[in-house]
Amino acid sequence: MPFPSRRASTVAPFMVMDVMSAAAARERSGLDVVHMEVGQPSAGAPRPVIEATRQALTLGRVPYTEALGLPALRERIARDYRDRYGVSVAPERVVVTTGSSAGFLLSFMALFDAGDRVGVPQPGYPAYRNILNSLGVEPVPMVLRDEDRYAPTADLIAAVHGTQALDGVLVMSPANPSGTVIVPDALAALCAKVRALGLPLISDEIYHGLTYGAPAATALQFEPDAVIINSFSKYHCMTGWRIGWMVVPEGLVRAVERLAQNLYISAPYLSQVGALAAFDATEELEVVRAGYARNRAILLDAFPGLGLGKVHPADGAFYIYADVSNLTADAAAFCRRMLDETGIAATPGLDFDPEAGGHHIRFSFAGSEADCRDTVARLRTWLG
Amino acid sequence: MPFPSRRASTVAPFMVMDVMSAAAARERSGLDVVHMEVGQPSAGAPRPVIEATRQALTLGRVPYTEALGLPALRERIARDYRDRYGVSVAPERVVVTTGSSAGFLLSFMALFDAGDRVGVPQPGYPAYRNILNSLGVEPVPMVLRDEDRYAPTADLIAAVHGTQALDGVLVMSPANPSGTVIVPDALAALCAKVRALGLPLISDEIYHGLTYGAPAATALQFEPDAVIINSFSKYHCMTGWRIGWMVVPEGLVRAVERLAQNLYISAPYLSQVGALAAFDATEELEVVRAGYARNRAILLDAFPGLGLGKVHPADGAFYIYADVSNLTADAAAFCRRMLDETGIAATPGLDFDPEAGGHHIRFSFAGSEADCRDTVARLRTWLG
Repeated sequence: MPFPSRRASTVAPFMVMDVMSAAAARERSGLDVVHMEVGQPSAGAPRPVIEATRQALTLGRVPYTEALGLPALRERIARDYRDRYGVSVAPERVVVTTGSSAGFLLSFMALFDAGDRVGVPQPGYPAYRNILNSLGVEPVPMVLRDEDRYAPTADLIAAVHGTQALDGVLVMSPANPSGTVIVPDALAALCAKVRALGLPLISDEIYHGLTYGAPAATALQFEPDAVIINSFSKYHCMTGWRIGWMVVPEGLVRAVERLAQNLYISAPYLSQVGALAAFDATEELEVVRAGYARNRAILLDAFPGLGLGKVHPADGAFYIYADVSNLTADAAAFCRRMLDETGIAATPGLDFDPEAGGHHIRFSFAGSEADCRDTVARLRTWLG
Repeated sequence: MPFPSRRASTVAPFMVMDVMSAAAARERSGLDVVHMEVGQPSAGAPRPVIEATRQALTLGRVPYTEALGLPALRERIARDYRDRYGVSVAPERVVVTTGSSAGFLLSFMALFDAGDRVGVPQPGYPAYRNILNSLGVEPVPMVLRDEDRYAPTADLIAAVHGTQALDGVLVMSPANPSGTVIVPDALAALCAKVRALGLPLISDEIYHGLTYGAPAATALQFEPDAVIINSFSKYHCMTGWRIGWMVVPEGLVRAVERLAQNLYISAPYLSQVGALAAFDATEELEVVRAGYARNRAILLDAFPGLGLGKVHPADGAFYIYADVSNLTADAAAFCRRMLDETGIAATPGLDFDPEAGGHHIRFSFAGSEADCRDTVARLRTWLG
């Protein structure tokens, strides 16, 4: 009787999920796995988050909140924009969301109608394409270029808009799968261009805080009307809590609120309480980041000697996106073989890029230093 | 720059939110409010839920889960169908969701394309209409009839389909705003009719467990391919946890999984752990239900004497939906005046029914017995 809709059929699965299944099967059969595929911190949430959540549990009240989130959390997030970026954001423009997943759905629904066309970076987070497709909105790939250090630029956006007539643009910095940051000057130019084209701009900033050189700029520094998507999952190590936020222009608040009321009622209460405490955990979280920095250095030092030296600029996040065209023409098969023969699980690039992804692999260094050293040693034996 | 999409403009706000704002403003000004508007249990989550969540917090790991949910929770939910209804459900068909809100979005997306038409009960939960509209799917009102005891029937569905050519049908039992249950024989006939028409059937069963006569039947007893939406928010008193589930036909599992991966990643981990423990809390939850039963009796005994005797059958849930056409032609204005002059907050019917809702009011008895007695006393003075 009920068959999947055409809509549902346009939505691709995450290939990383298949990698995770294969890795789990390998573990069940008693073999070991080095997990370089998972896009989540191995550290748990910081202590102040756990403690605040435990206290809320003791009080026993876990109610719905306002659809836009607990006022104290919205105010604290707004304050962070002033402290971190020197940007003034009214708390009323902050929308607490059920992870960045909800931020994407709400922003896409609030901004775009069926038939609209939205520029998205390629490679990029696959849910961009898939959520847009599920809404009847067409994702238009903006193919990132070596000469732009694999970051979207004003020129690239203008070129894509020139042939494809976009209705909006989405950018991400630091990026998934590559960690590449849009440097401030390039972001400023990009924002000016998108404004000149009269298009709405969505800026995915969920890896902010995780950079290994200069910190990333927020699009709000250059475009006050940008729609910002962010999350407590990455820097704050709160993946399974499903809690994030948006900053939206004043003129979009009511539309987002109505959508959020109907689609979510509210974000999970305990996660909102925990997220408020995450702002008091910077010291602990900077220790985690220092660990990522060590992991990153281990991989970046060793990869050239392993034939994995052609990588996108790994400025931030916890990923290295390596071109493996010198080793294989089929990254997915290569990843399966690597898992079988070395126990290393990594993600083939096709999740992120249906074209050049065929010869790219994403390694996540969100795990332990031991895992990163182990990866290098195993790859040296295997590829050597 | 970014303007709300046309899509967003079709989504109506919840009027109950305005009632809640007005009630909050009254409280801030130092006046008291009897909260009869809120659709959530005043009791907190039961002790086993709190305890299991506290233990998970102590372990400190709050990761993403599989998109379809923790296997142990899916198995426990499946077992409950056998225990409670004598229906066999494979755990693979259970989808853990971020509240029933996610269940609606996932089921609507998995089953319907833009331009499709879905029959929804009127009066009914407003998010049905609003989510369908946001997806470009047309909600077609199935106006509930006095002669059907205000429950959807096989005949009603056939009649609406006859003139409106539906692509699917949604029913709810016990209903919001009325508590009305579709009795088993009527549900069996309805399921057979929807199958004969070749339409997918979505059955919203989130108030199951909260009935005051015979328990409600699940659509799965009569239609194994029905898509079931359920939640831990109501019977299990876990609103702010945002955790629920679906049961879907085997042929729809992968479509729902792909959508869930992209739209949610997973439901909140702590809420999944808590939900698993909720099945061990029946004794505590039955005490809560006994409280609702007392509250319900207080209101139903008193309402006829107050001119509020014309109500939909209040078989379950924690609502009484009263026809106030003998008192006013404008229920919204009546509710505002009632709040101002008596301190009683209740929800005008227009949220649930853009037509007859103009002369209906929903009273929630999910609060305390004292609130219900107080409501009766204040109404007696005010209306008397």
